[in-house]
Amino acid sequence: MLIENTLKEYVNAVQSGDPTPGGGSVAALAGSLGAALTNMVGNLTFGKKAYNDLDGETQKKLEENFKELEKSVDILMAIVDEDSTAFDGVMNALKMPKETDEEKENRSKAIQEGYKEALIVPLKCAKECLHVLELQEVFAHHGNINAITDVGVGTLLAYTGLEGALFNVYINLKSIKDEDFRKETEETAYQLLSKGKILRDELLEEVYRRLN
Amino acid sequence: MLIENTLKEYVNAVQSGDPTPGGGSVAALAGSLGAALTNMVGNLTFGKKAYNDLDGETQKKLEENFKELEKSVDILMAIVDEDSTAFDGVMNALKMPKETDEEKENRSKAIQEGYKEALIVPLKCAKECLHVLELQEVFAHHGNINAITDVGVGTLLAYTGLEGALFNVYINLKSIKDEDFRKETEETAYQLLSKGKILRDELLEEVYRRLN
Repeated sequence: MLIENTLKEYVNAVQSGDPTPGGGSVAALAGSLGAALTNMVGNLTFGKKAYNDLDGETQKKLEENFKELEKSVDILMAIVDEDSTAFDGVMNALKMPKETDEEKENRSKAIQEGYKEALIVPLKCAKECLHVLELQEVFAHHGNINAITDVGVGTLLAYTGLEGALFNVYINLKSIKDEDFRKETEETAYQLLSKGKILRDELLEEVYRRLN
Repeated sequence: MLIENTLKEYVNAVQSGDPTPGGGSVAALAGSLGAALTNMVGNLTFGKKAYNDLDGETQKKLEENFKELEKSVDILMAIVDEDSTAFDGVMNALKMPKETDEEKENRSKAIQEGYKEALIVPLKCAKECLHVLELQEVFAHHGNINAITDVGVGTLLAYTGLEGALFNVYINLKSIKDEDFRKETEETAYQLLSKGKILRDELLEEVYRRLN
């Protein structure tokens, strides 16, 4: 499993001419690191004086989001590996026989199914990274001010995971002939990216405000 | 060494309440991954038909930048570890005696030196990430079109490494009393970020253009 690789091994594997691990895997790792960094800020916040001075509702929100972010770390770390097999359906379909008309039709259908399946993992990654950005908001406003820059790095990483994963959605969509499916997925991707950009900008603005 | 940690161990270490590894280390990892991903595109480009059709000057540029990016991968991977000790000077200075006026003055001077030293590593990281963005340009234009999304993820990562590292420059600058030094470093940081934003936007525009 890739997540059992050392950082050095993983970076070398990325750099190699093997297409996996590629951008999809690295985008998930970025998202996971963004969530983890936000929880480091949580760990540096809970129990401190500034935390004890917060109202109960904000404290509860910080703790709830911390738990949600722990889940996001795990989900995104799983995608670091899952991404490498996301394209297997297409690869297997491409190997199917294509002698007779029936074989050609079956192969073509299987390829189309493969591309639709290949979208599932990067779309899950993008949704989870948007969720991370949502969860980061309360840390940008109320996390330990001495670690506010870590929230900023976490925001940049979660956004990288979001847009990075969407690249893999777009490239697969290009091969899909089912127009309804394509339009629907394009709309989903557009919504995810638009929301992500707004959140990223809001979060970074708050980070710079508290930094200065 | 952190780079000998598995991805899982590193992500857990980031998430823990220990301030290191924190945003500075993760920013360097992001930059390193961005450089590595670009070189994966290089490896998927060299020797292919589209590559052989390029003019000699562009081929040479791709190969030169590939070699430069290999160096960037290593420099940024080293910072993943170096970042953890960047603040040691400040921490050691804080432990100095402060009984007499002389001791107070010496301690204060040592703290100020510590903050200046603490800037060196994140500033080096930011400069290297800007360099990665510069090196990515030829891959955005001429890299294997089937791997164009990987250039996009690489761009987002290098930019994250740049702005992420600068956060650590800004937060340390706040504690520095030497106004000339502060202004000069602020100007350097401003130039790096401005150039980085322009490059990021240009690169992503080219990635989307070739993707569509």
